Amino acid sequence: SRTIRLAVVPGDGIGQEVVAEGLKVLEAALPADVKLETTEYDLGARRYHRTGETLPDSVLAELKTHDAILLGAIGDPSVPSGVLERGLLLKLRFAFDHHINLRPGRLFPGVKSPLAGEPEIDFVVVREGTEGPYVGNGGTLRTGTEHEVATEVSLNTAYGIERVVRDAYRRAQARPRKKLTLVHKNNVLVHAGHLWTRIFEQVGREFPEVTTDYLHVDAATIFFVTQPERFDVIVTDNLFGDILTDLAAAVTGGIGLAASGNINPGGEFPSMFEPVHGSAPDIAGQGKADPTATVLSVAMLLDHLGFAAEAAAVEAAVAADLAERTGTRTTSQVGDALAARVSG
Amino acid sequence: SRTIRLAVVPGDGIGQEVVAEGLKVLEAALPADVKLETTEYDLGARRYHRTGETLPDSVLAELKTHDAILLGAIGDPSVPSGVLERGLLLKLRFAFDHHINLRPGRLFPGVKSPLAGEPEIDFVVVREGTEGPYVGNGGTLRTGTEHEVATEVSLNTAYGIERVVRDAYRRAQARPRKKLTLVHKNNVLVHAGHLWTRIFEQVGREFPEVTTDYLHVDAATIFFVTQPERFDVIVTDNLFGDILTDLAAAVTGGIGLAASGNINPGGEFPSMFEPVHGSAPDIAGQGKADPTATVLSVAMLLDHLGFAAEAAAVEAAVAADLAERTGTRTTSQVGDALAARVSG
Ligand SMILES: CC(C)[C@H](C(=O)O)[C@@H](O)C(=O)O
Ligand SMILES: CC(C)[C@H](C(=O)O)[C@@H](O)C(=O)O
Repeated sequence: SRTIRLAVVPGDGIGQEVVAEGLKVLEAALPADVKLETTEYDLGARRYHRTGETLPDSVLAELKTHDAILLGAIGDPSVPSGVLERGLLLKLRFAFDHHINLRPGRLFPGVKSPLAGEPEIDFVVVREGTEGPYVGNGGTLRTGTEHEVATEVSLNTAYGIERVVRDAYRRAQARPRKKLTLVHKNNVLVHAGHLWTRIFEQVGREFPEVTTDYLHVDAATIFFVTQPERFDVIVTDNLFGDILTDLAAAVTGGIGLAASGNINPGGEFPSMFEPVHGSAPDIAGQGKADPTATVLSVAMLLDHLGFAAEAAAVEAAVAADLAERTGTRTTSQVGDALAARVSG
Repeated sequence: SRTIRLAVVPGDGIGQEVVAEGLKVLEAALPADVKLETTEYDLGARRYHRTGETLPDSVLAELKTHDAILLGAIGDPSVPSGVLERGLLLKLRFAFDHHINLRPGRLFPGVKSPLAGEPEIDFVVVREGTEGPYVGNGGTLRTGTEHEVATEVSLNTAYGIERVVRDAYRRAQARPRKKLTLVHKNNVLVHAGHLWTRIFEQVGREFPEVTTDYLHVDAATIFFVTQPERFDVIVTDNLFGDILTDLAAAVTGGIGLAASGNINPGGEFPSMFEPVHGSAPDIAGQGKADPTATVLSVAMLLDHLGFAAEAAAVEAAVAADLAERTGTRTTSQVGDALAARVSG
């Protein structure tokens, strides 16, 4: 029998509620002989207000000993913008070398898209997670004056790009359509863009079966709304991936359904799974949040830990639930329904 | 009587065709006592292949003596990515200090949006045009090797942000809804983002009637497809503006209708008007291109040169034409129809 040591970071706002449902479904999905051992970590706005801490080194060290992390949502209007994002969320992604930020864009049957004509959408965005404009490399001069200058440096390495590009090719190779699209802005950000393009072409030689394509990020947003069915696997930079995956969530029925995995494929560090949505303080504590994005993130977590069949069962439960949705249910009613489908 | 000295850069692909129609409508719209003097400049892929030049200093100096520039489209697959973009298009924007990149997002009656439910869309994006990640400040180390590092530096100045933010407030103030949304990513790009936010709030004190709002760029893309009617004026950074305006074009019926102005408000340098679309080499020379985006850019040009009534007439002609569109027309048929409406 196997034990899974899961670190749980419910976080702020609706994070608590949706994580509870995610765990419910996780318990229901795991084989009987697998033991789930969870440790909850209190991180986010409340801890920050109480102690001024965002992610103490001691907590980081403890988190590291787990097999995976399930995160709800982080953030509150009472905390200045950037403090928890840089000090907690991004710190985790960088400290644990989560270089594969995996975000499926799938329109489930029965889900209404804001796009006319019920398009078929089933792609996955492989977003680089540890480089680009997200490195936090920048600063200000003459701060607070009318002569202030602020810089942000996007750092891109052949090493960092190659590993995410290769991962994306592997995923494309394993899918029926075997298509991979690189998204960047290599006509303007020529240094970073040409490096991405060079490595994309280079690694592509190892995957002759994969059809490739390149789009500028601006053009990609057009196709996301006019022709989303053209995409299979997309590989892109950290910032473009951030933008495109929110747009992907929007066209596939909303941020309430969008799952993500911050993956360290080698397993040197625990990978982290989280819904793409935020803490939604306006509806927190009211049982109104849709836990589906968290449950789909749990499916990704299962898959990452080697439970492919169980992951598929969770996804199937979500698909069945979405296909039959009518009326309004509370957060825990949705969780219960999904857990029941998974167990049944 | 007044003479307008217009520099015309048809450029590549469909650029030639759409510019011809734009000029047709411009002639039709101008008051009888205004003389239009055009000088055509051969810039773009053909010139680059012939001479290796993208924008010689002598041409730049000549362009500078004009009242405005009308540009068709630049680019061809035969030219390496970035050469014409950086060496011609962006060089013009930077050399002529086009810090206001104005891009309306308007869904005209009769135009099909890819969004369900026929939303009402009528906003304008004020994109910063001379700073941010577009400055071309970056480089590579160990170029071409597996140890390559590439950087892109986003440069942001209080001076540069303030002028575009103030321009956007003025535009918001002049519109019925008086609403201004700042789009950035100040929770991740904290240095640039906080500078934008500080100046946005500071300048806002001069415009107490304008309602303000802030959105992260990722969230903004969601609202572009789920709630585009919430936007009135948007002010944003060069790169975010690039991305958002292509998305705006997509939801308002496509890049074939999206106009833009690269404006130097002080008039020290000529402003430049161009359709947002590219050179579309696949349909070039076939009379298939829709000149409407160029014609709408001509309306912006008229407005910029002080011909407000004439600009409105061109817009009205486009609106009427779009409302009645049926069947397929050639590029020049559309131009003729619009010119006839404007004259009639
Ligand atoms: C909260 C923020 C730091 C984060 C990001 O920009 O990556 C979020 O938008 C996401 O997509 O997970
Ligand atoms: C061609 C390119 C340099 C340009 C840009 O990125 O600004 C284009 O996409 C645009 O939006 O005008």
